[in-house]
Amino acid sequence: MADDKKLTTRAADFSAWYNEVVLRGELADYSPVRGCMVIRPRGYGIWERMQRQLDFMFKDTGHENAYFPLFIPESFMRKEAEHVEGFAPETAVVTHGGGKKLEEPLVVRPTSETIIYAMLAKWVQSYRDLPVLINQWANVVRWEMRTRLFLRTLEFLWQEGHTAHATEHEAEEEARKMLGVYRDFMEGWMAMPVITGIKTDSERFAGALRTYGCEAMMQDNKALQAGTTHNLGQNFSKAFDLKFQTESGGMDYAWNTSWGVSTRLVGALVMTHGDDFGLRTPPFLAPIELVIVPIWRSDDDKTRVLEAARAIRDTLTAWERRKTGKLRVHLDDRDGMKPGAKYLRQVP
Amino acid sequence: MADDKKLTTRAADFSAWYNEVVLRGELADYSPVRGCMVIRPRGYGIWERMQRQLDFMFKDTGHENAYFPLFIPESFMRKEAEHVEGFAPETAVVTHGGGKKLEEPLVVRPTSETIIYAMLAKWVQSYRDLPVLINQWANVVRWEMRTRLFLRTLEFLWQEGHTAHATEHEAEEEARKMLGVYRDFMEGWMAMPVITGIKTDSERFAGALRTYGCEAMMQDNKALQAGTTHNLGQNFSKAFDLKFQTESGGMDYAWNTSWGVSTRLVGALVMTHGDDFGLRTPPFLAPIELVIVPIWRSDDDKTRVLEAARAIRDTLTAWERRKTGKLRVHLDDRDGMKPGAKYLRQVP
Repeated sequence: MADDKKLTTRAADFSAWYNEVVLRGELADYSPVRGCMVIRPRGYGIWERMQRQLDFMFKDTGHENAYFPLFIPESFMRKEAEHVEGFAPETAVVTHGGGKKLEEPLVVRPTSETIIYAMLAKWVQSYRDLPVLINQWANVVRWEMRTRLFLRTLEFLWQEGHTAHATEHEAEEEARKMLGVYRDFMEGWMAMPVITGIKTDSERFAGALRTYGCEAMMQDNKALQAGTTHNLGQNFSKAFDLKFQTESGGMDYAWNTSWGVSTRLVGALVMTHGDDFGLRTPPFLAPIELVIVPIWRSDDDKTRVLEAARAIRDTLTAWERRKTGKLRVHLDDRDGMKPGAKYLRQVP
Repeated sequence: MADDKKLTTRAADFSAWYNEVVLRGELADYSPVRGCMVIRPRGYGIWERMQRQLDFMFKDTGHENAYFPLFIPESFMRKEAEHVEGFAPETAVVTHGGGKKLEEPLVVRPTSETIIYAMLAKWVQSYRDLPVLINQWANVVRWEMRTRLFLRTLEFLWQEGHTAHATEHEAEEEARKMLGVYRDFMEGWMAMPVITGIKTDSERFAGALRTYGCEAMMQDNKALQAGTTHNLGQNFSKAFDLKFQTESGGMDYAWNTSWGVSTRLVGALVMTHGDDFGLRTPPFLAPIELVIVPIWRSDDDKTRVLEAARAIRDTLTAWERRKTGKLRVHLDDRDGMKPGAKYLRQVP
């Protein structure tokens, strides 16, 4: 799999450079399904480490994980006027199941506001049941015409936070708080500076009052939207009848927020830190931190060198077990490959 | 949400008892999509803890995580004769995307052998590239007619391991090893005794040489299939041209295995440990281990009692941070609810 041809430089063609880093670094590959990618172990390892940290930050701010269905009845999408207008043209639709045509087609979720707020309407009766602070790790599908590995794919992995609050103020506070969590993650863990702020009306999430975004500057001097949070107001709670009894005894619709980041962040990482030799990954997110390359001249040497190398790896790994995530060691004991070629191996 | 009506007893109606425990314990709920469930935070918390331990055990046995597309071209399903016969009747089919009819319908994955082995055929050239040891955490869809929360749902969450080996012996060893990992997990972490063994031909995975299963005995004296591993032989590698150059210079097809467990395990946990008061969860898997119920008589009391309760919670939580997963504490400070009702709250 080693590919000794030099990378296209960033200066020569940034877009070609990006694709080569992702493909030759074995982060991802094209799949037989148009616009869908395969995330290979090295790319998934980065995503996993991102997930672990984000998940910790979400829980630390009081959120719980849950899981809602992949399929959404088509009629649900239509209940919020702006939402259907924004997402309907991009949906994948299941029309047949178990060999039969379905009475109502099912949309493969492009995002889950509709199904989640329909369920919350069932669970929330009183202000005592609020706030509801839920997050979901899931795959979503948006039928994009032009796709790029990690940056824009038909199917992608993401997390979507969905919350319900008793007041507009609380919802606004949540949307801004999660923007801050994203910013902390991107700057502290990805070492990727971002500018946060409110999005323009044309870039607002379909169905939101206000959308906030984290914009990161890539090496080609273009901005990349790395994460967004939305104050949904009462738009979805009115569409799905998500009402609650207020503390003073009246009835009101809940105030919602949603927020998400996706596997696009892996692409952002590449475009922020990669150089003309390939990918560079901040230590916190690297699946492998330290590679041991054993060198030998004779078969006799080989046995002794490998034995010593394995002992070092095992010692370091045992140390890792005591302090999980502190040092991730890999012994590159592949046979029939020169050390030089191993040094050039693009370990993320 | 507290529901003071007594549970149906196991003796009276085991199936009704099971549904009540899952619904009233807020582990899961029915969704507006037939056969699809919503996994609520308490149920998802158990699944998350299962995932964390299984993931550790998979990595400890040399596997890496990756992610393959949700959609599979219909033609792929047809390449392995037994496989299509077994799965085609249960598929959900996407016929439209982005507002247009697709040239080739896409199947929502019921399992991922076909797409994964098609990709491995691209990545594996030589015996040096073997073994490939991959696992995927994903959602899958099987169009079942009769569904039960957790036990049998149209969409479910699972992990699917997929491996490629140079010899039949290695593949057989892998299928048996992962059966052992499942057994260790079910017995050691779920406290659920299982019987392992080879499945009959009629229960064999569609496309496998041999299927091994973990069968667990539920409290209604019925066996539940809790996990399976498959020696796929060369069936899929022949269908997808997954060949490699052998050490002696010839060409051979790779030997594959696959293995999976799903959110069904949450249902198995309920049916193994639940009693007529509700759910009981082994400590390793309980999202909450310790609940603090403050008791007060006057408002003055309340302030002091809550302050003390919060201090205890914070001390215990800080201790947890040092030894992650060792003690999970919850302070039930809900207002307007008697302590007695809190004791009866069905914390998993």
